[in-house]
Amino acid sequence: MYNLLKGKKGLIFGALNDKSLAWKVAEKAYEEGAEFVLTNTPVSMRFGEIHELAAKCNTIVVPADATNVKDLENLLDKTMEHFGGKIDFILHSVAMSLNVRKGRNYDNLDYGYLNKTLDISAISFHKLLQAAKKKDAINKWGSVVALSYVAAQKTLYRYNDMADAKAMLESIARSFGYIYGREKKIRVNTISQSPTMTTAGSGVKGIDGLMDFTERMSPLGNATADEFANFCITLFSDLTKKVTMQNLYHDGGFSSMGMSLRAMTMYNQALDNPVEPENYDD
Amino acid sequence: MYNLLKGKKGLIFGALNDKSLAWKVAEKAYEEGAEFVLTNTPVSMRFGEIHELAAKCNTIVVPADATNVKDLENLLDKTMEHFGGKIDFILHSVAMSLNVRKGRNYDNLDYGYLNKTLDISAISFHKLLQAAKKKDAINKWGSVVALSYVAAQKTLYRYNDMADAKAMLESIARSFGYIYGREKKIRVNTISQSPTMTTAGSGVKGIDGLMDFTERMSPLGNATADEFANFCITLFSDLTKKVTMQNLYHDGGFSSMGMSLRAMTMYNQALDNPVEPENYDD
Amino acid sequence: MYNLLKGKKGLIFGALNDKSLAWKVAEKAYEEGAEFVLTNTPVSMRFGEIHELAAKCNTIVVPADATNVKDLENLLDKTMEHFGGKIDFILHSVAMSLNVRKGRNYDNLDYGYLNKTLDISAISFHKLLQAAKKKDAINKWGSVVALSYVAAQKTLYRYNDMADAKAMLESIARSFGYIYGREKKIRVNTISQSPTMTTAGSGVKGIDGLMDFTERMSPLGNATADEFANFCITLFSDLTKKVTMQNLYHDGGFSSMGMSLRAMTMYNQALDNPVEPENYDD
Amino acid sequence: MYNLLKGKKGLIFGALNDKSLAWKVAEKAYEEGAEFVLTNTPVSMRFGEIHELAAKCNTIVVPADATNVKDLENLLDKTMEHFGGKIDFILHSVAMSLNVRKGRNYDNLDYGYLNKTLDISAISFHKLLQAAKKKDAINKWGSVVALSYVAAQKTLYRYNDMADAKAMLESIARSFGYIYGREKKIRVNTISQSPTMTTAGSGVKGIDGLMDFTERMSPLGNATADEFANFCITLFSDLTKKVTMQNLYHDGGFSSMGMSLRAMTMYNQALDNPVEPENYDD
Repeated sequence: MYNLLKGKKGLIFGALNDKSLAWKVAEKAYEEGAEFVLTNTPVSMRFGEIHELAAKCNTIVVPADATNVKDLENLLDKTMEHFGGKIDFILHSVAMSLNVRKGRNYDNLDYGYLNKTLDISAISFHKLLQAAKKKDAINKWGSVVALSYVAAQKTLYRYNDMADAKAMLESIARSFGYIYGREKKIRVNTISQSPTMTTAGSGVKGIDGLMDFTERMSPLGNATADEFANFCITLFSDLTKKVTMQNLYHDGGFSSMGMSLRAMTMYNQALDNPVEPENYDD
Repeated sequence: MYNLLKGKKGLIFGALNDKSLAWKVAEKAYEEGAEFVLTNTPVSMRFGEIHELAAKCNTIVVPADATNVKDLENLLDKTMEHFGGKIDFILHSVAMSLNVRKGRNYDNLDYGYLNKTLDISAISFHKLLQAAKKKDAINKWGSVVALSYVAAQKTLYRYNDMADAKAMLESIARSFGYIYGREKKIRVNTISQSPTMTTAGSGVKGIDGLMDFTERMSPLGNATADEFANFCITLFSDLTKKVTMQNLYHDGGFSSMGMSLRAMTMYNQALDNPVEPENYDD
Repeated sequence: MYNLLKGKKGLIFGALNDKSLAWKVAEKAYEEGAEFVLTNTPVSMRFGEIHELAAKCNTIVVPADATNVKDLENLLDKTMEHFGGKIDFILHSVAMSLNVRKGRNYDNLDYGYLNKTLDISAISFHKLLQAAKKKDAINKWGSVVALSYVAAQKTLYRYNDMADAKAMLESIARSFGYIYGREKKIRVNTISQSPTMTTAGSGVKGIDGLMDFTERMSPLGNATADEFANFCITLFSDLTKKVTMQNLYHDGGFSSMGMSLRAMTMYNQALDNPVEPENYDD
Repeated sequence: MYNLLKGKKGLIFGALNDKSLAWKVAEKAYEEGAEFVLTNTPVSMRFGEIHELAAKCNTIVVPADATNVKDLENLLDKTMEHFGGKIDFILHSVAMSLNVRKGRNYDNLDYGYLNKTLDISAISFHKLLQAAKKKDAINKWGSVVALSYVAAQKTLYRYNDMADAKAMLESIARSFGYIYGREKKIRVNTISQSPTMTTAGSGVKGIDGLMDFTERMSPLGNATADEFANFCITLFSDLTKKVTMQNLYHDGGFSSMGMSLRAMTMYNQALDNPVEPENYDD
C-alpha cells in the first residue's frame, strides 16, 4: 500500500469472480487509493460476483456489452457522472471465443463465431478507445491497459482464433496509442500475462500440462493474478508516463526462453518411450 | 530464368494491372516454368487487365470474391479441374479498407467498414486456407504466401485499420501455418514489402513523401514490384521447404533501420524552420 | 513519494553529474526510501560531482572500474559491509566507445577499441552479475536493471559499435536472467530509453537532429531523465516481481512507430530540394 | 540444379567434414554453377576433410584464422587473385566457445575464454566485412550470410556465452549491412538454423533431447543441413537482392511456436511423475 493511485479514477472491465485478473486489479487499485467503476456484461454479472466486489471497493457496477458502442457510451457517461469528471485509467480484460467453446478447430472455424471472437476480444477495445476519445473521457497522461497473451506472437495449439484476436488487440493498442498519445498524451499498452487459473483459463482443455510447462520454463515461475494486479498498478501510476504502444510481458521470463533445464528434464522422461498425439482434433 | 518452378501449379490472387505485385509474380512464375490459375473479384476484373495477363501466361481466369467461402471452393475446384490435380503454391495479395477510402480516420472508424477491412484483408486468407485444406487442394511441401506490410508491427500514420488487418493476417499465417505444416507439410508465410507504386499504393495520400523517406532509410533502397516477384519465386520453389510461419521483410533493409544518414540529412533541412501538421485529420 | 523502496538497499553505477540518468535514479530512489551505495570509475569521479550526490543521499561512494572483477568484488564487499547485509537492487548505467570518441567509423573500427567498448558496455554487466551471484550479494526477489538503447535492434547511423555492445548487453540480461531467476528469483532487465541530453549524449555528433526526430516520432515525446528514474523505481519495487529477461522500451512510443504525421511533416519540407550527405564519414 | 549461381564467385568459411553446414553449401553452390574458394583454420583443416571437398568442387583451400585481420586480408587477396576479380558471395560459418568446451557454466565464465568466444564467433564477422570493404572485394549486389541460432533471442540452457556471441553477430549483420548496403549495394544477413547434428552440434551435451523437442515443436520438423544449403543458395542468388539486415529463420517453424500438440503430448508423460534437475551445473 503506497497510495500509488491516490486521487485517480478508473474503469475496470472483466471482473467475474475472485479468480479474475480484473478482480485482483480492482482490489489492488482500491488499496492504492483509486476510485473506479466496475463493468461487465449482464450475463457475466449474473454468473459472477461483481456486486460483492463493488461493495468491498465502495463503488458501483454499470453493465455494458463491450461490443456495443451505445453501451460503451452510456458506460462512459455514467462513469464520468459518477466521478463528476474524467477518468485516469482503464483496464480492458475482455475475451471470448465461441470457436473454442464449441470445439471448432482452427482449420474448421465458423466465421460467424470468428467475427464474434474478434468483436469481443479485439474490436471492443477499439470501440472503447474511440468512444472515450470522442467523449474526451480520459485525463491527460491517463493510462489504458488491455490483457494479451504470448499467443499473439507464438502459436500455441488449441489457442485457436484467440491468437489472431490477441494479435489484432496488440495492433489496436499501437494504432490507437499513437493517436491518443499525440493528441491527448494518453498511453495505451497491453500486458502479456502467464497462463492463469482464472475461470476462463480453467476451462481450457490441457491447461494443467501447459501451466506445468510454462512454470518450469519460466525462471521465476508463472506470474499469478495477484502479481498481475501489482504490475498493472505500476502502469496506471504516474511513474510510467512515457511507456506506450508496448506489449509488456509479465510472465516470469517465459517469453524470453527457448528451453530451460527444468522443462527439458521433464521432457526427457519421455524420450525412451515417445508418444504421438492420438489425433489432431485440436 | 532458372526453371525454378518447372512442373509446379499455382493460384494467384490480386493481379489488377501491370503495376500489381501479383501481376509481376505471375509473369515471373510463368518464366520460371510454372502453370497457374489467375483470380480476382469480378469488379477488379472489369477495371483491370487480368485477361491480358492470362493470355500472356497461357492460362485462365476464375473470378472469385475472396471473402466468400463458396466462391473460394468453386475457385479451388475449377483450379484443380484445370490442372487435373492439386496445386503447389498460392499467392494471396488481397487488401482493401473502406475506412481509408472514405477518409474515416482511425479514431473515427465505421465498424461496418472495419469488418469489411478485416474480411477482405485478413479473414479471406483464413477462408482460403481452410477451404484448401478441406479440399486437400495443395500438394505436400506446397507453399502459400500472403502480402503484408511493416505497419503490422510499427505504426504509420494514415495506414489506419489496415495495420490491424495486416497484424491479423500475419497471425493467421502463423496459426494456420502450424496446422497445415504438421498435417500436410505445407508452409505458410507473409512477405512484408516496401511501399510500392501499385494502383492501390498510388491512391494513398502522402505516399510520395513516405516512399522518399523509406528509400533514403533503406540502405538498398525500396524493393520494386519486380524484385518482389523474384523473392516470391524463391518462396514457391523447393529451395525454401523449411521456412514457415515467418513474416519475411523484403524492403531493402528498412525494417532494421532506426535512422540513416541519408534520411537524417533530409530531415535536418527543416530543423531551422520547424513546421507542425495543420491538423490531425489523418 | 510513495515509499516504494522503503527498506530496500541498492547499488547504483554511473552517476556522473545531475544530467546523468543514474543521478536521477539515485535522487528518486532516495526519495522513495531506499538506501544505496554509489559507484563510478576514479576518472569519472574526478570529472563529475558524485560526492555531492552522495552527500545529498546520505551515502558513500566506492570507486570501481566496472571491467575489473577485483574492483567489482571489492565494491560488493564494501557495499554489503556498509549495509550489514545483502542488497535488493542494482542499476548498471555504464557505456563508452573509443571508436566513437576517436571518430573511427564502423567500417574502420580499431579492434582494440572494440574490445574496450564491449568490456565496458556489455561484459562489465556480466562481471557484475557473476561476482554478485558468487558472493550471494542480492536478496531473493532482487532486481537488476541495465541501460540499453533501441540501436540494439535497429541501426542508427553513427551509433557505431555501441549498437553491437547494446545487443550483447540485452543478451546478457536474458542469459543471466535465466540463471539468476531459476536459482535465486532475482530478475534482470534492460530499459531502452529515449535519447537523452546527458553529458554522454550531448557529445554525440548530430544528437540535436536525432532528438528532434525522435521527439516528433514519439506520440508522447522523448522520455526525460526524470521520467526514466520514475520508471526505473517501478522495476526496483516489489510490484514488478515477475518481469524478467525483458528489454523494456521507455521512449514515448518511438520503438513502435514507423512514421508519424509530425515527423513526416518536417521531412516533407525537404522533398522539393532534396539533399544528399556530403560524405559517408560516419 | 537450376544454375542459380552461374558465373558467381564466392568464399566459404567453415567446412570441416561432410556433416558441416558449410560443406553442404559448397556442394550445392557448386551444383548451381558457382565457383568459390574454401577456407578454414589450419587446425580445422587437419582434423577435417576440406581438401576432399576442394577436389570435388574443383577449387583451392586457403587457410585463415578468421580472428586474424592479416590472415583475412591474405585470404581475400588470394581469393581475388584466384578469380582474377571480385567475388559475389560469402558464407561465414564460424563459431566456438571455450567456456562451453571446458564446462564453464554461464555464471562461472572465464573472461579470457569469453573474449575468445566473441572474437571467433562474432568479431571475426566484422573483421571479414571490414577487410572485404577496404579491399573492395565484393561485387555490387553481392551477398554475405552468417550462421546464427535462435539462442540470440531466446535463452536455451547450456548454450552459454554463445547466445551473447550470436546476438552480437546478428547486430553486426545489421550494423555492417547498413554501411555495406548504402555504399556498395551489398546485402548482409544471418540465417537462424534448426539445431543440426554437425560435428560441432553433436558435441553439445543433451543435444538429442533438445533436437527431439525442436523436431516435435516445429510443424515441418527440424531443417537439415541439406535444406540449409538450399536456402542459403537462394540468398546468394539474384532473386533476393533487396533482403538485407535480416535474421532469417530456417527452422521448420520452431521460432514461431509457443507449444505444439506433439511436444506437449511428450511432455505430459512426465506430469504424474515430475522430476527435477539433479543440479544446476549447466
